[in-house]
Amino acid sequence: MPFAYAKTGMSLIVQKYGGTSVGSIERIKIIAQKVCDFQAKGHKTVVVVSAMSGETNRLTALAHELQAQPDPREMDVLLSTGEQLTIALLAMALQNCGCDVRSYTGSQVRIITDSVHTKARIREIEQSKIKHDLDKGRIVIVAGFQGSDEKGNITTLGRGGSDTTAVALAAALNADECQIYTDVDGVYTTDPRVVAEATKLDNITYEEMLEMASQGAKVLQIRSVEFASKYSVPLRVLSSFVDGEGTLISAEEGRMEQALISGIAFNRDEAKLTIVGVPDQPGVAHHILGPIGNANIEVDMIIQNVGVDGTTDFTFTVHRQDYEKTFKLLQTIAADLGARDVSGDTKIVKIALVGVGMRSHAGIASTMFAALAKESINIKMISTSEIKIAVVVDEKYLELAVRALHDNFDLAKAE
Amino acid sequence: MPFAYAKTGMSLIVQKYGGTSVGSIERIKIIAQKVCDFQAKGHKTVVVVSAMSGETNRLTALAHELQAQPDPREMDVLLSTGEQLTIALLAMALQNCGCDVRSYTGSQVRIITDSVHTKARIREIEQSKIKHDLDKGRIVIVAGFQGSDEKGNITTLGRGGSDTTAVALAAALNADECQIYTDVDGVYTTDPRVVAEATKLDNITYEEMLEMASQGAKVLQIRSVEFASKYSVPLRVLSSFVDGEGTLISAEEGRMEQALISGIAFNRDEAKLTIVGVPDQPGVAHHILGPIGNANIEVDMIIQNVGVDGTTDFTFTVHRQDYEKTFKLLQTIAADLGARDVSGDTKIVKIALVGVGMRSHAGIASTMFAALAKESINIKMISTSEIKIAVVVDEKYLELAVRALHDNFDLAKAE
Repeated sequence: MPFAYAKTGMSLIVQKYGGTSVGSIERIKIIAQKVCDFQAKGHKTVVVVSAMSGETNRLTALAHELQAQPDPREMDVLLSTGEQLTIALLAMALQNCGCDVRSYTGSQVRIITDSVHTKARIREIEQSKIKHDLDKGRIVIVAGFQGSDEKGNITTLGRGGSDTTAVALAAALNADECQIYTDVDGVYTTDPRVVAEATKLDNITYEEMLEMASQGAKVLQIRSVEFASKYSVPLRVLSSFVDGEGTLISAEEGRMEQALISGIAFNRDEAKLTIVGVPDQPGVAHHILGPIGNANIEVDMIIQNVGVDGTTDFTFTVHRQDYEKTFKLLQTIAADLGARDVSGDTKIVKIALVGVGMRSHAGIASTMFAALAKESINIKMISTSEIKIAVVVDEKYLELAVRALHDNFDLAKAE
Repeated sequence: MPFAYAKTGMSLIVQKYGGTSVGSIERIKIIAQKVCDFQAKGHKTVVVVSAMSGETNRLTALAHELQAQPDPREMDVLLSTGEQLTIALLAMALQNCGCDVRSYTGSQVRIITDSVHTKARIREIEQSKIKHDLDKGRIVIVAGFQGSDEKGNITTLGRGGSDTTAVALAAALNADECQIYTDVDGVYTTDPRVVAEATKLDNITYEEMLEMASQGAKVLQIRSVEFASKYSVPLRVLSSFVDGEGTLISAEEGRMEQALISGIAFNRDEAKLTIVGVPDQPGVAHHILGPIGNANIEVDMIIQNVGVDGTTDFTFTVHRQDYEKTFKLLQTIAADLGARDVSGDTKIVKIALVGVGMRSHAGIASTMFAALAKESINIKMISTSEIKIAVVVDEKYLELAVRALHDNFDLAKAE
């Protein structure tokens, strides 16, 4: 394989396969052959697996026949059987390929977490068993998504938990790379369903990936990218079924050449609300957003214009499903504050240009705005960070805008 | 309940529910209510459960899609998810009844076993967690059939493993009683499908139960009765779905009144083989049975007649499915030994009279033989132990023989 494994002769790689990749006995056999071939190339290999697709739903449905809100501790006991089933089956499939192998549940490893059932956080991972097995030439299989607290209670890590397990294991074992196998073959400059010319990125930084992910590119869970970034674990996204090098997500330093823009993310799930003519005085943002936060509504972009006649307009976006609830809350808040009006729009999308190259290049924003203006696309909101420029536009312009930007920033030639 | 729990005020009871009893969400709800009501009477309650009926078959089928002989270690990882699923669901159902409850896998308890995967033996059980929970008024649910070895590998106990878990827990916790809930309401004088007048026994000794079980009464696994006997754990067999006192299996001393005969067991699964005209000399039994044992064929009854003309006939029984294989082996052995012939019969049954009362009563055997003779039933083999007389007769006489004996020994009046 072209990417540089062999730092010190033999490399240590953690691979993670999701529920779709191990969704049937046939697929488990395919993955086993892949893992076996990989190890045969001289890599110490640790494999993290999720529950077979459908299994978690089956278990959840059983629990819901008993409790509308299943008890978190017992839910963890129940759900953790899902990955345990996969590790045993994958171990058998690997044995069929002639590999020596050991499977471990999270508790067995031990992956020690806090005691927050259904969304526990990893505190510590014991390495001795795994290292011992690897030294004996064994492939080690670890159940993703699960661990146990210090009292031995079974815990699960919540959404994207298996990715987190893989990254945490890679960090604990000081692995050379953590490979996340999914149903896509890497991270793209933008969604290929929108822009046919979208190209796969060979490299992307943690920061860019975080911006891409939070802007709606669903390849990796934000949590596992944050984790990888924190512990400097090189993370690679690849396809379970198609050979290729995927996309390497790593720290900026490691990159040979810096692309200006890495990709374009977009998000159709937001709605925009504005409280119009609020008195422009200290504390007003808190007065508006406090009750929204208390109602467990997550706010994404926030914009407050400079006031002119002593009043200002305050605009923010929320998840589209929270729109009605937020609108009602905002009406009450508007009355309290003596604001003129509340308005809102659910037919919007957010589009973001992401790239660490922005840091050292001026003029990206104006190029972006020019490209949109050329297509007569009106920008409703703008928000920027060091490596991102996000705009909100009418929903109907989504494809047009993304294609225009992809074209203007030459992303089709990203290779 | 009429049986004497309250040795020391509050009693500690271990209950075990099998796969049929927890075979659906509806049944789990019924069992939860039963357990909850039971605890409410003031009993400290530990519940051991099997996998839901069907679950073990589902898991085994998955393994068999990969390996004809699944790897024992990984099979244990796989199968142990079955009971883990049940403990979580039962815990949720008990919470719905308002109970405080904790579920534990075998590893969590910890139930320490040897490392013989798929048929491990229990070495030690830690009591601290369970006792702590019981003292806090909690119901404790433990996954049957499973444990872990000293290295933390998951193990399973093999056939009847959940019964063994229950008895071992009862022994470790010094429980007042171990209750095995099944689909029958107790141990009967004989199979009610053969003798309509068969009556449920209130009491039976461990020894009698062992003879009954090994003679073909399938209520309890022999292993769990042996275990209960060894640690003097009072064992009670009851129905999961019908209220009643079941049958108490305990040491002889505890019994108020000694019945002469406790029951009649029978077994349709055997076949008889005879090697005719073997030279009657030392070592001949070993010469015959050695190769049979080496072929993993289990021999039950063995009879050697006194030789007359320097030769003897040697007869034994095996499981009917081993008949053909044994017959062929015996032909080779006969040739080696210079025996005259090999004969066999698959259309036989074994019938056994069981009762500790036999010890102090002469004449039971002759009453038995007289009863069979009166019905013109020819006895083909006889074998006795201190508390058992077993005969082999033609298959066609099974019902007639069992009814005649049941009648002759007044078992219908056993109450």
